[in-house]
Amino acid sequence: MAKKTPAKTPTILGSALPNIPWEDKPADCPHVMWRNSANPLIGWNPTPNTARVYNSAPVPFKKGFAGVFRADGRNGRAALHSGTSADGLSFDIQDKKIEWVDENGQPATPSYAYDPRVVKIGSWYYITWCDDFPGASIGLGRTKDFETFIRMENPLMPFNRNGVLFPRKINGEYVLLSRPSDSAHTPFGDVVLSHSKDLTYWGKHRMVMQKGGSGWWQGVKIGAGPIPIETKEGWLVFYHGVSTTCCGFVYSIGASLHDLDKPEKVLYRTRDYLLTPEKPYETTGFVPNVCFPVSALVDAPTGRISLYYGAADTYTAMAHCQVDELLTYLKANSEV
Amino acid sequence: MAKKTPAKTPTILGSALPNIPWEDKPADCPHVMWRNSANPLIGWNPTPNTARVYNSAPVPFKKGFAGVFRADGRNGRAALHSGTSADGLSFDIQDKKIEWVDENGQPATPSYAYDPRVVKIGSWYYITWCDDFPGASIGLGRTKDFETFIRMENPLMPFNRNGVLFPRKINGEYVLLSRPSDSAHTPFGDVVLSHSKDLTYWGKHRMVMQKGGSGWWQGVKIGAGPIPIETKEGWLVFYHGVSTTCCGFVYSIGASLHDLDKPEKVLYRTRDYLLTPEKPYETTGFVPNVCFPVSALVDAPTGRISLYYGAADTYTAMAHCQVDELLTYLKANSEV
Amino acid sequence: MAKKTPAKTPTILGSALPNIPWEDKPADCPHVMWRNSANPLIGWNPTPNTARVYNSAPVPFKKGFAGVFRADGRNGRAALHSGTSADGLSFDIQDKKIEWVDENGQPATPSYAYDPRVVKIGSWYYITWCDDFPGASIGLGRTKDFETFIRMENPLMPFNRNGVLFPRKINGEYVLLSRPSDSAHTPFGDVVLSHSKDLTYWGKHRMVMQKGGSGWWQGVKIGAGPIPIETKEGWLVFYHGVSTTCCGFVYSIGASLHDLDKPEKVLYRTRDYLLTPEKPYETTGFVPNVCFPVSALVDAPTGRISLYYGAADTYTAMAHCQVDELLTYLKANSEV
Amino acid sequence: MAKKTPAKTPTILGSALPNIPWEDKPADCPHVMWRNSANPLIGWNPTPNTARVYNSAPVPFKKGFAGVFRADGRNGRAALHSGTSADGLSFDIQDKKIEWVDENGQPATPSYAYDPRVVKIGSWYYITWCDDFPGASIGLGRTKDFETFIRMENPLMPFNRNGVLFPRKINGEYVLLSRPSDSAHTPFGDVVLSHSKDLTYWGKHRMVMQKGGSGWWQGVKIGAGPIPIETKEGWLVFYHGVSTTCCGFVYSIGASLHDLDKPEKVLYRTRDYLLTPEKPYETTGFVPNVCFPVSALVDAPTGRISLYYGAADTYTAMAHCQVDELLTYLKANSEV
Amino acid sequence: MAKKTPAKTPTILGSALPNIPWEDKPADCPHVMWRNSANPLIGWNPTPNTARVYNSAPVPFKKGFAGVFRADGRNGRAALHSGTSADGLSFDIQDKKIEWVDENGQPATPSYAYDPRVVKIGSWYYITWCDDFPGASIGLGRTKDFETFIRMENPLMPFNRNGVLFPRKINGEYVLLSRPSDSAHTPFGDVVLSHSKDLTYWGKHRMVMQKGGSGWWQGVKIGAGPIPIETKEGWLVFYHGVSTTCCGFVYSIGASLHDLDKPEKVLYRTRDYLLTPEKPYETTGFVPNVCFPVSALVDAPTGRISLYYGAADTYTAMAHCQVDELLTYLKANSEV
Amino acid sequence: MAKKTPAKTPTILGSALPNIPWEDKPADCPHVMWRNSANPLIGWNPTPNTARVYNSAPVPFKKGFAGVFRADGRNGRAALHSGTSADGLSFDIQDKKIEWVDENGQPATPSYAYDPRVVKIGSWYYITWCDDFPGASIGLGRTKDFETFIRMENPLMPFNRNGVLFPRKINGEYVLLSRPSDSAHTPFGDVVLSHSKDLTYWGKHRMVMQKGGSGWWQGVKIGAGPIPIETKEGWLVFYHGVSTTCCGFVYSIGASLHDLDKPEKVLYRTRDYLLTPEKPYETTGFVPNVCFPVSALVDAPTGRISLYYGAADTYTAMAHCQVDELLTYLKANSEV
Repeated sequence: MAKKTPAKTPTILGSALPNIPWEDKPADCPHVMWRNSANPLIGWNPTPNTARVYNSAPVPFKKGFAGVFRADGRNGRAALHSGTSADGLSFDIQDKKIEWVDENGQPATPSYAYDPRVVKIGSWYYITWCDDFPGASIGLGRTKDFETFIRMENPLMPFNRNGVLFPRKINGEYVLLSRPSDSAHTPFGDVVLSHSKDLTYWGKHRMVMQKGGSGWWQGVKIGAGPIPIETKEGWLVFYHGVSTTCCGFVYSIGASLHDLDKPEKVLYRTRDYLLTPEKPYETTGFVPNVCFPVSALVDAPTGRISLYYGAADTYTAMAHCQVDELLTYLKANSEV
Repeated sequence: MAKKTPAKTPTILGSALPNIPWEDKPADCPHVMWRNSANPLIGWNPTPNTARVYNSAPVPFKKGFAGVFRADGRNGRAALHSGTSADGLSFDIQDKKIEWVDENGQPATPSYAYDPRVVKIGSWYYITWCDDFPGASIGLGRTKDFETFIRMENPLMPFNRNGVLFPRKINGEYVLLSRPSDSAHTPFGDVVLSHSKDLTYWGKHRMVMQKGGSGWWQGVKIGAGPIPIETKEGWLVFYHGVSTTCCGFVYSIGASLHDLDKPEKVLYRTRDYLLTPEKPYETTGFVPNVCFPVSALVDAPTGRISLYYGAADTYTAMAHCQVDELLTYLKANSEV
Repeated sequence: MAKKTPAKTPTILGSALPNIPWEDKPADCPHVMWRNSANPLIGWNPTPNTARVYNSAPVPFKKGFAGVFRADGRNGRAALHSGTSADGLSFDIQDKKIEWVDENGQPATPSYAYDPRVVKIGSWYYITWCDDFPGASIGLGRTKDFETFIRMENPLMPFNRNGVLFPRKINGEYVLLSRPSDSAHTPFGDVVLSHSKDLTYWGKHRMVMQKGGSGWWQGVKIGAGPIPIETKEGWLVFYHGVSTTCCGFVYSIGASLHDLDKPEKVLYRTRDYLLTPEKPYETTGFVPNVCFPVSALVDAPTGRISLYYGAADTYTAMAHCQVDELLTYLKANSEV
Repeated sequence: MAKKTPAKTPTILGSALPNIPWEDKPADCPHVMWRNSANPLIGWNPTPNTARVYNSAPVPFKKGFAGVFRADGRNGRAALHSGTSADGLSFDIQDKKIEWVDENGQPATPSYAYDPRVVKIGSWYYITWCDDFPGASIGLGRTKDFETFIRMENPLMPFNRNGVLFPRKINGEYVLLSRPSDSAHTPFGDVVLSHSKDLTYWGKHRMVMQKGGSGWWQGVKIGAGPIPIETKEGWLVFYHGVSTTCCGFVYSIGASLHDLDKPEKVLYRTRDYLLTPEKPYETTGFVPNVCFPVSALVDAPTGRISLYYGAADTYTAMAHCQVDELLTYLKANSEV
Repeated sequence: MAKKTPAKTPTILGSALPNIPWEDKPADCPHVMWRNSANPLIGWNPTPNTARVYNSAPVPFKKGFAGVFRADGRNGRAALHSGTSADGLSFDIQDKKIEWVDENGQPATPSYAYDPRVVKIGSWYYITWCDDFPGASIGLGRTKDFETFIRMENPLMPFNRNGVLFPRKINGEYVLLSRPSDSAHTPFGDVVLSHSKDLTYWGKHRMVMQKGGSGWWQGVKIGAGPIPIETKEGWLVFYHGVSTTCCGFVYSIGASLHDLDKPEKVLYRTRDYLLTPEKPYETTGFVPNVCFPVSALVDAPTGRISLYYGAADTYTAMAHCQVDELLTYLKANSEV
Repeated sequence: MAKKTPAKTPTILGSALPNIPWEDKPADCPHVMWRNSANPLIGWNPTPNTARVYNSAPVPFKKGFAGVFRADGRNGRAALHSGTSADGLSFDIQDKKIEWVDENGQPATPSYAYDPRVVKIGSWYYITWCDDFPGASIGLGRTKDFETFIRMENPLMPFNRNGVLFPRKINGEYVLLSRPSDSAHTPFGDVVLSHSKDLTYWGKHRMVMQKGGSGWWQGVKIGAGPIPIETKEGWLVFYHGVSTTCCGFVYSIGASLHDLDKPEKVLYRTRDYLLTPEKPYETTGFVPNVCFPVSALVDAPTGRISLYYGAADTYTAMAHCQVDELLTYLKANSEV
């Protein structure tokens, strides 16, 4: 395996994040991704009215971090909550859900919302999530301060989940990954991509990558995870892959690398998973056997990537990798 | 029931079609819609290589009619064929499927295609259909002569069926009805609507109407049929409603009236079906018990509407109604 | 097969019905039950607002017949309608559904209702049907004139269908057959029996007979049909048996004979069906392949039995048999 | 949250139970219900021939406790066993299942039996359970000494589960809660109620409360748990609510308060669950993620309630709450 | 299309059958296979105790024909009956089912049996059918006179259907086609092939051909029909292909040509079906939309092939084709 | 329970295995089978490219043990790997899967393979496994050195799993147990048996034992586990039995004793399971609640049996029993 030597010219095309939460790889770990020993970062009942905060999307904000989190209340219903953190490891989650307003300031809170992603484009933080159209579809909104949240038009129609925006326009257009699905626990699913000039009207939909391949860990469905990370070699995408057993689904984590100019073109894709449920906080909980990648913090100079993933639909956990080591591995173990 | 007295100012905002295929209502028919006695218009094996031509979309063309037809070949696969007719009752269907080209003239024929709708906007005839993205989605293309067919970008992502364009821009935007679905024999489905300025990028999706209501004939799913007909009182939409029995689905025909400026607003909607499978060519065939409305010819001066519908996924059939009688009925028997 | 010689002492313990609708067995019919050549007795759209009147329960009333009928409206929803007939073959069905009142005269019409049975006990005609509790359950009510209908307490809880009252108390108690089911197109079902002293409180539930046996025609579920007919040899029950194919359910008609004092005891039961869907009005319609027995007229002196059955959930049809011939056949071809 | 100050006039209309098993709420517990630290009270293989004793119904008996327990044998089959306990925390379960006799002393043991509830009315302890009619239905019997058990008539027909008797007659009638279901792992279910004058004949069935609401924890089905607790403000009912994930059902615990005279009237109902599977003995076992409330001990003077619940269909566990605190919470967080 | 000119050297390697039931192709038929105008050959209730005789396997016998027939009794259960015919068009079916004996003359009748095929090898007529192992599997037996039927060992294990023997050893081994399935209405299925030296022990299983292809008519499952016909160009196999609609399965007929020495090698296979349900006796009946080929009579000198097929699981019907015309068509329209 | 007194004449007809991995029964264990305290023997990620090695078949080899193992790679796909062990407790698994060759030395590795069994007959070690025919079927091969593996003909057709060879010919024929299934997570399954003279051609299939019985632990399906152990009293077979909950399947372990000369005859069969998932390594993992017996080591002189079983489709674990104690228990607690 490659050694963690930061490249002279950083591989990641992005900013430094010196305060990235980080933990070195254990000496005996033969794999390219490893867990943080503080896992789970967020446990049962983090606030009086929330039961499980697990699919979490923190981003660097001011001197620390802020983000949007999936919080399933003690009524079992999914909602988006905002939260902050000084160190990216321990979190202060709001006990009340985000109350959205539309462009005119009128209330526009969805009846349920889950699995948020957050990306900064220009001066705004854009949030995508799974919204009730009615029926699972992609929701879209923005904030500047994680206090006021403005609802925008839903970009796509139901049934769809796992909407993920690229962090900048490509060829003059916004690009959105998503995963068309059905109205229930969808037993299929591929990643597609859409274009927009204005974040309101979307078109030129393209197939990006499909479930399946020689392995079984991604044989049922796949879906994009964190905001794509721009590297010199392409867009780095972490995604979840799902297999099915006689006791339900198992969610693992993989990665793919996409052409910078034409992101629907997959250059490399992990033949094997990078992480799969092994730990008690991953194999037991509200939904056993789930590792669901949602967001990533990156430090360009060191190439450090810290990945937040939901565990067992119950806990927030963190895994780490180093970008060069990952890309080397990805190229050597790819199946497109 | 209202008598067929053509309004002084025609109710339908459209052209005259003096050669509309037509047959008066039988004296003993108590209902607002009736079948043409020549049904089925197209029977088994209309051409050497097609088995069933049933969901058919003829439009006025030159001195007669031309159109796009769903033709299931003797291999059972669905394709779009063009065809012509002198009288709108007997048809000359091409034995080979339409070969699409893209804007650059390159081959762009979908792997399968079905349930076309055709609408003239400006100098082009636009065709929408159910396309393989992969996975059922809305296809879009255009022709001027029913000989060369140009494929455009798919407006929406899978899984979607029953895409129907309005015949003109509304408030400066194209409007498209569709019915989000799943990847199989979808046991649910509502009609939604999307906007576009350029037929390429689509957004501002709105729920139009949902399955259900006090009756059971439209309790499983609904989907728009012919191109909406502009009337003084609103957009007239014929749609199919589906109920389910222990032997499968039953497709019936209903209608709704929509606000001219804001077509997602339903003004009236049939509480009862207008037509349901009763005749042998509707109750038996490849799929028993299907009446699936696809296209309509209208003659504005007389208010005559002649509706093409697929019967039993096997035959093309025709039903008739008169717009004023229908609107009177619709208002008196509406449930929104 | 036995000849139709009326016994000196009639086998049927009941009244004469000289005007029973009747048609002799065709000379070439080798079976014990035969169809009336006027079938279907009630076809599509018998009244302006009803689409299909099929599961029908006429009884002798005044000089002719009156009854309660399942009428599915043009909205597809099931309701009970009253109707009359001079000859038991052609019917005058009310276009509006029965409006029930409770014991205090307050409105008590169920949200939907289907598959009625009617039995005269004392001076009242009692009606049982499938009611929405919510969820399919047995409804119960009474009338004296087929004009005012009084709703009583539902005897049993959901999910249940095919409730059939015996025509008199047995050992001082009312007895009710029923068929516990589930909330949908129940793929199982046996006939059970309950007791009551007052038609309000029910108990002492007993298994009567179960689906299955060496034949397949009743392998999926069974359910009682007409009011049991009292004979010297036991209660004669006609029932439906269901088998399943790759295209759905098939409903046939059988019969059983039950101990007079202890009706949960089955003395004989048809190993083979008596009637199965063969005719176009039975094999095609809203639900193909249904013969569903609902009510019977009997003339004790002659032993004539005329059975009303729903055909294809679309038509009302009639079949005939003679009680002695039937009992002889039943004993010779029984499997309990 | 309210402090545990026993009301001058006790809220609970019942007896004192000074030896109620009890443990105070941990200082850091923000919720109204908490677990006993000795959980699980009964673990794997409590007797040589039983594998799992989990849905347990102890009641005060003599100086300690006796009860009826669901014991799944090492053959996996469910049966009822009797057992005793000195302190309500550790149990002596009989290794052999209860052998029922009927009123005449004849053997009447059901082929399987599960989920018992026990209530003392007059001098008898009545037991309800889920019985094989055949097919899941409510069984009923009684004992005076937990040694001789007399089988009575099944009150209701299949398919039904979770039968729970009120602890006294209301308006001169016994009242029974139950949950109509289907023949398998029922994916729906509401609580209904029936009346009887004699425990043999039942009628006047009423809907009590339905699955659903704004939360998801009780969106699939609900069912009554322990014998209703009479309080000054109404009948207090603990019940289970079920949600579904891609890996199966999750059972949580809620509560409702019902009108004393008309118990089908729900005054308050928990919007949120009170307890949900979080602990290893709740999230793993024969059926992961089950907290199933079955019985409660109450001490009227102190308002203490100790709830027995089955955990993971494997363990018997206990949770506690105080009645005044619970009612205050329930009123403030109710959704009916 | 090719004209019916008998080849100088017959294409079919077999005997003459001058009395083959035959009817020339109608002048207006553009297809390679056509129906006999006497269809259906066997209708409802052909004998007192049989309801439907449809999947029929007559072979030349003495001066006429004898065979084994699937006869579903009036109890709905499938059994094998023997029968004879003078002309191959009208049949005399035994009213009682075949009573098998084993090699020692002991009774060995299967509990049910269906879909027989009959082939003469040497002096014996061998019969294969679908047997209850328990569970659908291939049964095997033989007769010399269609009066005494000797049961042999079942060649393969469940679950399997459509077992078809080749009419002679190939490379010294018997060869058996079959279609592995599941225990119900199997929604998948491919044709495989097994070898045996002695008809008792089988091995060297080979995949022959799979469902699917560019067409949809054989997209769900396929299964071999009549005994393969030896021609100069290969083994000619007729088979059924199944597609699925929202109302169930549709069975059509296709053909394939296999290498003479290595029959698992498919040389040609029909891209389109040869016959699909169009006629009322094919589209309605016990199972709508079934054309199921079972046996074929051939006349080598003229190349005439008369195909018996079951229609709607109710009727026996016949279709015709001419071998040279068929082979020409097959080569020109093949997709392997 | 019987004491472990080795019989003078050993009960097991086999060799001594002095180095059998072994651990005495804990003093407080009331059951006939107990776990090894070193469990799990093989944990997550035993080699760089394998994730889970669980269904394991070691046999005595040279001075220690060698075997074939199911290893699911980090791509989630199942493959067979060889491995060795000095003590039968810790294993050295090959990181690369077995590469099979056919009799001619040509590559013949299956696309996937799982659940191997290994048996020495003569000088060869034969391996059976679940192979892709395509579709689950029984694979067969042999090795002498666990380095070169020769693929043989698949003995049976799909769909089949759990093929287990007897360790010697019986009446001159090889005997193979198997479990016919369907193409997915088969919800049914019985054990059958086939005969062969040459390991290539198989026939004379016999039903051995079926799912069900009075208990529920084996109510869904059963399948043979290790190679049958020859004892003086019959063939001892360990097998898995499956029950189903609302969260999926539960796999337990039972045993049966079969006639030595006619092994399809079951002499005794465990009414109760011997082992069921209780430990964290059995109740959580890739598939919760699985104990799947695969292979056994036996020491004839002492009657010691050490059973390898897969736990949670994740771990390799070991349980022990003593043959005489087991047989005594089996006879006393049998239900055939």
